[in-house]
Amino acid sequence: MSAVPRGSTSAAWPHPADFSAPPTSHDRARWAEADRIARPARLAALRARMAAEGVDGFFGLRWEHMRYLTGLPFDEGEVTGSGDSGKFLITGRESIVLADSRYTIAVGRDAPGSRAYPAVGPLAGLWPDLLADAGVTRVAVEAMTIPHLAWERLQAAAPGVELVPVDGWVEAIRQVKEPSEVERIAAACAVADRALALLLPSIRPGVTERELALDLEWRIRTGGAERLAFDVACLAGPEAALPHGSPGDRPVRSGAVLLFDFGAQVAGYRSDMTRTIFVGEPSVRDLAVHEVVLAAQSAAIDALRDALAGARHGALLPSGPEIDQVARAVIEADGRWPAYGHGLGHGIGIATHELPGLGSRSPTSPLPTPTVFSVEPGIYLEGETGVRIEDLVHLDAAAGALERLTRFPSGVVVVGA
Amino acid sequence: MSAVPRGSTSAAWPHPADFSAPPTSHDRARWAEADRIARPARLAALRARMAAEGVDGFFGLRWEHMRYLTGLPFDEGEVTGSGDSGKFLITGRESIVLADSRYTIAVGRDAPGSRAYPAVGPLAGLWPDLLADAGVTRVAVEAMTIPHLAWERLQAAAPGVELVPVDGWVEAIRQVKEPSEVERIAAACAVADRALALLLPSIRPGVTERELALDLEWRIRTGGAERLAFDVACLAGPEAALPHGSPGDRPVRSGAVLLFDFGAQVAGYRSDMTRTIFVGEPSVRDLAVHEVVLAAQSAAIDALRDALAGARHGALLPSGPEIDQVARAVIEADGRWPAYGHGLGHGIGIATHELPGLGSRSPTSPLPTPTVFSVEPGIYLEGETGVRIEDLVHLDAAAGALERLTRFPSGVVVVGA
Repeated sequence: MSAVPRGSTSAAWPHPADFSAPPTSHDRARWAEADRIARPARLAALRARMAAEGVDGFFGLRWEHMRYLTGLPFDEGEVTGSGDSGKFLITGRESIVLADSRYTIAVGRDAPGSRAYPAVGPLAGLWPDLLADAGVTRVAVEAMTIPHLAWERLQAAAPGVELVPVDGWVEAIRQVKEPSEVERIAAACAVADRALALLLPSIRPGVTERELALDLEWRIRTGGAERLAFDVACLAGPEAALPHGSPGDRPVRSGAVLLFDFGAQVAGYRSDMTRTIFVGEPSVRDLAVHEVVLAAQSAAIDALRDALAGARHGALLPSGPEIDQVARAVIEADGRWPAYGHGLGHGIGIATHELPGLGSRSPTSPLPTPTVFSVEPGIYLEGETGVRIEDLVHLDAAAGALERLTRFPSGVVVVGA
Repeated sequence: MSAVPRGSTSAAWPHPADFSAPPTSHDRARWAEADRIARPARLAALRARMAAEGVDGFFGLRWEHMRYLTGLPFDEGEVTGSGDSGKFLITGRESIVLADSRYTIAVGRDAPGSRAYPAVGPLAGLWPDLLADAGVTRVAVEAMTIPHLAWERLQAAAPGVELVPVDGWVEAIRQVKEPSEVERIAAACAVADRALALLLPSIRPGVTERELALDLEWRIRTGGAERLAFDVACLAGPEAALPHGSPGDRPVRSGAVLLFDFGAQVAGYRSDMTRTIFVGEPSVRDLAVHEVVLAAQSAAIDALRDALAGARHGALLPSGPEIDQVARAVIEADGRWPAYGHGLGHGIGIATHELPGLGSRSPTSPLPTPTVFSVEPGIYLEGETGVRIEDLVHLDAAAGALERLTRFPSGVVVVGA
């Protein structure tokens, strides 16, 4: 017996036109301008931290921070081949970006508020002159990014300058989102929503995970995204029990679930969503698992709404672990299946995984605001099936608003029946 | 006046069928088996280095090394979200791979010669137990990969164990290629060759760089590759002068060059090639630049052949900088345009950029053998035009063989005329 009357669900499929249209060149120009205007405040926040910690320089190495603070549009791909280009030094007065001959033009165009500094030869070789030129003597260095050997070489190259290992300074600033950042994450969500809606008619028994993943990627990248947020996961049946599996040549089978975990990048900002679709007649067990996961997600979102009401009366926002526990408790109270082993969610923005963390071991401080994060409970039955439902939400305590940025319906969707 | 008779060149276009067919599932099974058989020798080479340097453990963090030594099929994308999973410890007796719950199954399946060790909580927390369990007291750590802060935490967690910062040990082993590695690089070259041949009819004035890059990527990824080696560069006219530009919404124009730099990944091994195509009537200047670049590449390849002949009589192979200088000298002797600012070439295999280096500042030791590397001279005229021609070659001194793995013709190809 199926809980979903046969034939009644196809009509409920979301249609691509249900979601916002891809961004226009006007949107992109507006966002670029918003970044330009926001950059001084971002730098001011970092400089306040520098002053509080008693350093006069901050040496940054992460591509996300290059983009956020300087405007240089790097990502994971760029940073592999760029050598020292893009690494930057923030002082009280200046933003200095290293650039070898390949990147000088890009720095002038994309990082107009920064000074390009020629990156010739090994970093340790130019380090003393760079520090002298910038006039800094105590420099914070991103110590969870700089390799140990590079740190040792910098220290040896300028023994008179103190290096201070720091971690998370820019991440703490980035977790609070500006309106134009939220807009771009929402636009990335809409590109992903629409891509999945476009894909639904192509899903049928026999087509492979890999074919569907490639098809979905194509729709994302020709539908308004400049790139994927991360490789598409498309996992059929028992494979959906692997929270980190990748698509294979396994064919989609009728009567089993099909899990998609994917995201788009629009104007430098990312989305992340998971939907678990039913192919053919759903099994009673799979529908029940889906129902529990959806209830867990709803409970977490309800708890966030309640917290917003409390925050209006001066209460602190809950912590990530508290919200994780709300969702987890629903699955545990049901008692039939084990709760997810990962965290309930993560912040997102320029990177796919940012602060805040919503796992059981995340910091117990109140959630930041305004911020954007995922809510993604799951149940995984090894060798049998897996269900995860993931939406992005925008939390804004000052506005008293909790907005779901992922608009693709989270209820039961049956295809190929 | 054009040096290329109008209409005579279309017939000379390479055809997709000129190149080897995509690998079959039989090829893939054979390569997986070759890896399985080769892994003990790879580990033995590392253990010999460990013994020579007086360490009883090697802690590896690079995804290339995870794949090469353990079989775990990680790449840049996987390593971002995998936490500590995949990091590995080689001892005199064992290969131990860290794996959180998401990766336990994968380690069992893909790294059958390794023992999975549960990666629960922060690395520093499990470090003392891991070392005790493995029975090691002096551990080499990949110090150009491990972040400085992580190093400090490991050192503090097990002060009785000496950490030895090392760099390049596995890279030195990987630069010498096994026959099945060369086969896979050649297969990746063929996928890329065929994809470009398929793309030629789509190139016409008005189509954008971004559209062509996406089209080429599609043909690579549906033509036998599991992924790109790196993002496709497609640069029109003056943009081709940026050795590291990325495709934009700029339309292809008649009478200008169009540079493609791209590669495929097949069964974990990569290719890398560059072709500079002419759209419409080529300018005399662009044809002359192309001719000089091609002459520079030919000179380098001829010098390698000569060196092979010499090696048969006991001479040492030339160094990377010597071959770079041969190509550079051709452009300098011509004297009309400046030679490329980058190196002549780089090794390739599991990663896009490996040892050996063929730049002016690369090590002056003789080239390794057997090995595979790129030969990619270029001339870049800022704001005007750029030409680069890049082929992969397989150098095998024992066999007296220099084989060009890139088979797409390197002569003048005119499209859209």
